[in-house]
Amino acid sequence: MFQRGIQIEKGRVGVMGAAGDVLRESGRVLVERMAEYLDTVAERPVSTPLAPSDLLGRFAEPLPREGRPAEVVWADVWERVVDDSIHLAHPMYMGHQVAPPLPHAVLADALTSLLNQSTAVWEMAPTGTGVEQQVVGWMRELLDFPPQSDGTLVSGGSAANLTGLLAAREATFPGAWRDGVQGSSQLERAAVFVADHAHYSIERALGVMGLGHGAGIRVAERDFRLDPAALERAIADARSRGRIPLAIVATGGSTATGLFDDLSAIADIARSESIWLHVDGAHGASFMASDRLRERLRGMERADSVSWDPHKMMFMPISAGAILVRDRRHLDSAFQQTAPYLFHPRPGESRSHDIGRRTLQCSKRFDALKIWISVQIHGLDHFARLQEHTVDRAAALFRKLQEADDFEPAHAPESNILCFRHLPVAWRDRPTEELDSLQNRLREVYNASGRGWITATVLGGRRVLRVTLMNPATTDDHLEALLQGLRDTAAGLTGSTGREPSRAGGESRR
Amino acid sequence: MFQRGIQIEKGRVGVMGAAGDVLRESGRVLVERMAEYLDTVAERPVSTPLAPSDLLGRFAEPLPREGRPAEVVWADVWERVVDDSIHLAHPMYMGHQVAPPLPHAVLADALTSLLNQSTAVWEMAPTGTGVEQQVVGWMRELLDFPPQSDGTLVSGGSAANLTGLLAAREATFPGAWRDGVQGSSQLERAAVFVADHAHYSIERALGVMGLGHGAGIRVAERDFRLDPAALERAIADARSRGRIPLAIVATGGSTATGLFDDLSAIADIARSESIWLHVDGAHGASFMASDRLRERLRGMERADSVSWDPHKMMFMPISAGAILVRDRRHLDSAFQQTAPYLFHPRPGESRSHDIGRRTLQCSKRFDALKIWISVQIHGLDHFARLQEHTVDRAAALFRKLQEADDFEPAHAPESNILCFRHLPVAWRDRPTEELDSLQNRLREVYNASGRGWITATVLGGRRVLRVTLMNPATTDDHLEALLQGLRDTAAGLTGSTGREPSRAGGESRR
Repeated sequence: MFQRGIQIEKGRVGVMGAAGDVLRESGRVLVERMAEYLDTVAERPVSTPLAPSDLLGRFAEPLPREGRPAEVVWADVWERVVDDSIHLAHPMYMGHQVAPPLPHAVLADALTSLLNQSTAVWEMAPTGTGVEQQVVGWMRELLDFPPQSDGTLVSGGSAANLTGLLAAREATFPGAWRDGVQGSSQLERAAVFVADHAHYSIERALGVMGLGHGAGIRVAERDFRLDPAALERAIADARSRGRIPLAIVATGGSTATGLFDDLSAIADIARSESIWLHVDGAHGASFMASDRLRERLRGMERADSVSWDPHKMMFMPISAGAILVRDRRHLDSAFQQTAPYLFHPRPGESRSHDIGRRTLQCSKRFDALKIWISVQIHGLDHFARLQEHTVDRAAALFRKLQEADDFEPAHAPESNILCFRHLPVAWRDRPTEELDSLQNRLREVYNASGRGWITATVLGGRRVLRVTLMNPATTDDHLEALLQGLRDTAAGLTGSTGREPSRAGGESRR
Repeated sequence: MFQRGIQIEKGRVGVMGAAGDVLRESGRVLVERMAEYLDTVAERPVSTPLAPSDLLGRFAEPLPREGRPAEVVWADVWERVVDDSIHLAHPMYMGHQVAPPLPHAVLADALTSLLNQSTAVWEMAPTGTGVEQQVVGWMRELLDFPPQSDGTLVSGGSAANLTGLLAAREATFPGAWRDGVQGSSQLERAAVFVADHAHYSIERALGVMGLGHGAGIRVAERDFRLDPAALERAIADARSRGRIPLAIVATGGSTATGLFDDLSAIADIARSESIWLHVDGAHGASFMASDRLRERLRGMERADSVSWDPHKMMFMPISAGAILVRDRRHLDSAFQQTAPYLFHPRPGESRSHDIGRRTLQCSKRFDALKIWISVQIHGLDHFARLQEHTVDRAAALFRKLQEADDFEPAHAPESNILCFRHLPVAWRDRPTEELDSLQNRLREVYNASGRGWITATVLGGRRVLRVTLMNPATTDDHLEALLQGLRDTAAGLTGSTGREPSRAGGESRR
């Protein structure tokens, strides 16, 4: 056991030999348990019925000064942590845009952690840097980006969006990094054009960068998409008020609806107006793997920067995000600093290979490994098929909703996301507020039942149910089970009295 | 095999059953290989002799549309990626502040990836949120932080430092998040007091936040520590020029030397001047686990925010960073945004448990699990012993350097970091530039030899060698081997002619 092996005797720490035994012994048990988990996950409730107040207290314990046997702790992990997790691998999981990860990617993450290469600095990841460069190269190829393009893996879409806007800032306001608001950079006149459906991390990036909400200029939507005509008007209006466009933010697969902005039309405007185009493709850029789905992203190849989360539709575990720029110089200039203890110029090389000069992170996880391994084992076409399967299920669900007299789709789906409402026949004439409230309660009680798990959002001012079909194991049978589950739940809620039942947190399903 | 199991037949994707088999089959092999790796790592060269140009081309391959057998790809990973990695688990690894991870933490990371809980949102990590809250609670306890303190795990020290400064910005300039430079926030007058030895991520944070380099006011050092008297003068001078102090940044274990700023004296100044105190304890805060070492951090308990990287001296794999604040309201206000699809108020709860409202990240890896598991299995005292062992080795190395007539320590060590120079007796009277150049070449050739691996930096204008003793397996024998290795290498470099040999990248050790 590790605790015995690592004890300090006669000034020596015998960690290495023992560490192998520990990993071997506990690793074998863990692999078998993880495999059993996948074998049987469909028999579990999808998530826990317990409320935060029920669960958070479970972990309140004094900081242990002494250890406990590893097998006891690990057994406890499966009971206390795993059982009441949300089970993304369950085919009835249709929740947020987090993927059930591919098994080889899960295993690759263990190797990533064992090697602990820090990919910010070449000498701390001599091969890891090469693997990341290759993965980024494949992404650039899929994007049809030019040879001078580049990119880096980041912790996720939020970091990617922030990085893209930092690159845009320096390209538009040269010297902004160095001089900031204390220079004559006119940063206070910056304007970022963004639709309402943009992910909150865009607004957050403006906050982080000290530009404030006023820097974000809301562009009207049409059918839940950024309206190119409104964008042109917004730009003209902003310019007339002395504002300086910093970037246009378009979305390739928006969070709420999964719909795609008209990237070609927006790229035309960006080019004619000479404004940086950032495309948030966190969700949708992975669809470039599919010859059928990539059509929906036409125009993205003309973006100046693209956010892309392989931990969404490439079925990778978190963390696996990426920022790609069409001209590497803009990524080089997005961050500028010196660190003599880290970034050494190497003899005979004109350009540093230290990725960390171009990311927010200094310690940087070797997330590229799992992508590199998975793409080689499965081949890209396999990813395309998995994606098409989930997108086809959204289309199938849309047809079912249209055919049903008690459901109403909020839009036709373009990806694997779909918003809709359940409107029980007897409730059709109820006021809007009651129908909104019903959707809320329906989601809550349905999710707490363990039968399935969906999300909700606000669309056009109305509360809607929302599914993201992240799991390739989800079939049409599961979609039927979803509708039946929602009907059953609504019947229980509306009942004979139509009164509100007690809240979900107090119910138990076990 | 996975590829057969996951194929789409009759509209069904049989992913789940097959996924368990894939994980079981490939996982068993991987665990055995990882264990063998740990068993034999000390027999490997510590890192590769190959240069970036040699290695990066190795991975240049077309994007594969078709897959390959998993066992072939995995075997290739061990050959192409692992063999030429830098091996942190090798006891002669004494390089940057990245740890050889504890085996149970490596395994925990596999479970983290399998479950893929996204800890930004409670409902996507019902138990994961509780585990993170508990780990943060333990950290608050170790810091002696008050009950109203709080924190969150982040991707690493750079994100933690940025988050701490964002909290400081909002506390000092209320409304800065919302209004930014377009408001009347006076952000252009902001001043952050920082010593030269501060990590580059502080300067980077100022760049990201649009404050510019001018916002950073350099405070003089004394003996490689921030000089409190100079800090007082700098504050007075800045105020007299109309500047508004945003934060004082002190360091608990500086990157270059591992020395600790006088946090008590600095906390006194921060309090009397009413300025936010941010302590970058990325490296050193873990020493709070040790009754002996925590004395060096006295005063940190009075900081307003603390950065802390468990992926350094808690021997966790990347990513595992944390930001702690002494008043949770400042973390709540550091980020402000709406996202109706994510952050739902929950019935009956006054305060949201969604961690993502207080971090840069939206998808957020369940990094707390490995800390929680490792602390329970080993007990905190075990971490203290591992830390003390590495710190004691730095002290032992210091004594050896003092006793040797051809080595010169640059400072007395306070943690597990030590800078020094090798000055071969015959070279004593050489000009400074030649001695600087020797240190550079020495590190390069020694590292390329595979015998050991160290870093270098610039200290007081002079090039110095630098070790960070991150590996508890490193013993005094290994320290002797380090000195002998450097002597041998220098002898080869200075030789009878004293001329520079050909560059390291062209040499081979295999």
